[in-house]
Amino acid sequence: MSFDVEKIRADFPILSRQVNGRPLVYLDNGASAQKPRVVIDAITRAYEAEYANVHRGLHFLSNLATENYERVRAIIARFLNAPREDEVIFTSGATEGINLVSYGWAAPRLGPGDEIVLSVLEHHANIVPWHFLRERQGVALKWVEPEPDGSLPPEKVLAAVGPRTRLIAVTHMSNVTGTVVDVGAIARATDVPVLADGSQAAVHMPVDLSTLGVDFYCITGHKLYGPSGSGAIWIRAERQAEMRPFMGGGDMIRTVTRDGVDYADPPLRFEAGTPGIANQIGLGAALEYLMALGMENIAAHERDLRDYARERLRSLNWLSVQGDAAEKGAIFSMTMQGAHAHDISTILDKRGIAVRAGTHCAMPLLDFFGLSATARASFAMYNTRAEVDALVDGLSFCRELFA
Amino acid sequence: MSFDVEKIRADFPILSRQVNGRPLVYLDNGASAQKPRVVIDAITRAYEAEYANVHRGLHFLSNLATENYERVRAIIARFLNAPREDEVIFTSGATEGINLVSYGWAAPRLGPGDEIVLSVLEHHANIVPWHFLRERQGVALKWVEPEPDGSLPPEKVLAAVGPRTRLIAVTHMSNVTGTVVDVGAIARATDVPVLADGSQAAVHMPVDLSTLGVDFYCITGHKLYGPSGSGAIWIRAERQAEMRPFMGGGDMIRTVTRDGVDYADPPLRFEAGTPGIANQIGLGAALEYLMALGMENIAAHERDLRDYARERLRSLNWLSVQGDAAEKGAIFSMTMQGAHAHDISTILDKRGIAVRAGTHCAMPLLDFFGLSATARASFAMYNTRAEVDALVDGLSFCRELFA
Repeated sequence: MSFDVEKIRADFPILSRQVNGRPLVYLDNGASAQKPRVVIDAITRAYEAEYANVHRGLHFLSNLATENYERVRAIIARFLNAPREDEVIFTSGATEGINLVSYGWAAPRLGPGDEIVLSVLEHHANIVPWHFLRERQGVALKWVEPEPDGSLPPEKVLAAVGPRTRLIAVTHMSNVTGTVVDVGAIARATDVPVLADGSQAAVHMPVDLSTLGVDFYCITGHKLYGPSGSGAIWIRAERQAEMRPFMGGGDMIRTVTRDGVDYADPPLRFEAGTPGIANQIGLGAALEYLMALGMENIAAHERDLRDYARERLRSLNWLSVQGDAAEKGAIFSMTMQGAHAHDISTILDKRGIAVRAGTHCAMPLLDFFGLSATARASFAMYNTRAEVDALVDGLSFCRELFA
Repeated sequence: MSFDVEKIRADFPILSRQVNGRPLVYLDNGASAQKPRVVIDAITRAYEAEYANVHRGLHFLSNLATENYERVRAIIARFLNAPREDEVIFTSGATEGINLVSYGWAAPRLGPGDEIVLSVLEHHANIVPWHFLRERQGVALKWVEPEPDGSLPPEKVLAAVGPRTRLIAVTHMSNVTGTVVDVGAIARATDVPVLADGSQAAVHMPVDLSTLGVDFYCITGHKLYGPSGSGAIWIRAERQAEMRPFMGGGDMIRTVTRDGVDYADPPLRFEAGTPGIANQIGLGAALEYLMALGMENIAAHERDLRDYARERLRSLNWLSVQGDAAEKGAIFSMTMQGAHAHDISTILDKRGIAVRAGTHCAMPLLDFFGLSATARASFAMYNTRAEVDALVDGLSFCRELFA
């Protein structure tokens, strides 16, 4: 199947808009991706014609909404090639997913002296929930540094595992450097449960949970071309069985009395309250869109963008790019002598180019690089070589201003 | 201002659809409300033309999305007449809001022997998070029963308060009986912090947090004619200052290092990760729609519906309605000798009438009434007297079938 990027672009209404009088060049996909027409239409249809609360109704609209909503669990399982559909737990995003693991699995099991191995590449979403356990119950965090090029060899992570290590929490793809971490090699080499943060990776490459060997894998819908407040975490059934509920409310119980609660079976046990019905329905539409294109095809297109961008950015000898691992996504964190990242972002924005400046919710990694901020261009399936050129031209313009 | 219900109905696309060949009579608003065109359009516009992640960007779309999103905080404050805008914390709904209070405020402060006073009217969302504290740290739950008519006199709640009572958690309007609880009278008569669950009340009556005297007040967007996964909890600044963070992740921190976290100031401290951007923007549109109509006008229309429905349902001597407090919303939980609630719901559905059958996430209240299920008709601002008539006709048809 050929990958027709112009056809894909036409599916995303926002990509045809102008910003500051110039065609939008949206390179802030690492923060959040734009939405194709099919996702917007799915949400509209959900509200215009098929809406009611799910699970607890018997009437037509409630049954219809429940079907539309629960169907997405199977779509997510297929998208991630998850062994079991009921191992998919709906969340509002990766942050809720990781907090579910922290509160539901780790908090009741880990105590003083127990260790969690983390990489310095992590996003705050995969750091702060573990700091809670350090602050509140004396769990130790053991940090693994990447190589200077941003790569994270599995051996290095495994070398940090000791007899008190109870969890390894590591990203599948860095949102700052694009580094792909071989989480499968880590998981298959140890009995310690592994949580992989798939917030970035699942957007850019095929994920196969049937072979990856991890225990927890979270995705976040808004980065996957899906709606705000959509997402999921896949949790191996054995780990689910070890978990206590996280949030309490409707839908996650079998019975409630004044004296106690009998909890529903997983996955509902971990899904309290009225869920993000239309959001998850929109996510289902996004994932079906991605599967129709083929994640292999998307990955191939983005590899081409990555290689082209890498080559063009390397040719700018006044530009530094943080992280240059062989296996990386099309994410480039850049600094320029004499120009602050915020200035770069602001100047590029005047040319219609959206990049993000700051610490990208990864302060320990920025510290590792000795930086307080970078300007980050993060590509998605709808970006083009011409947009790489626009970025390079914009950076050159910055350079002229600040040189 | 006259209240033109037909004009309002025309704003809700789904209300013109048919179900089972009959015009939809949607009386499941207690579970979730339908969405007006302005809400659907706000979501569409957010994704089609104004989307990016919020807070952390500097580029045009990120600034625009941040403005659109943060603006909703002020709208919510205005809707609830909250004293301070920064006391409004965005949540995915009431369940997350109450869990935030349970995990963030109560868990670190309450221990064995401390008491939480709850009413038997509560929804599971305002029960299960407190059962967690009972299960995990020995907190005692003290239950206050309503009167046989479903009313809950403030004195009765206050009489349950003892020296070890640390929190009163009570609904502002029952989702089963419609009972309005005078939470202001409770809060003003005691120094014990009061959490009021406004999931139902805020939809049907004006709420004035500047005089109500409670400490915590949660709303849920999907019942307020807003999107899935939207909502907020208002928490008095003094209580916020006593809270520790609930979920950890991006946006709720000032700095993160390998050794620790410096948390952001409230309200961001309690809003981890990428929020429900388009959801909250849609909620803003819903609340502006409600305020344009006027909550007093909405309440007056619904009082008329309530009185008309009460009178018509009372005339059916084979029908029992649970809860008949003088102050109640237009919510009717019904049982009929010889017909199970599920049968009633199914038969009404065949006539296009959506009501909910079951325990309505309020099992302790159903137990109190000695029932295992009711069929619940819950009205909203877009319902009409003609729909009350349709309900009565449908119930009479059930009666004929099962008599």
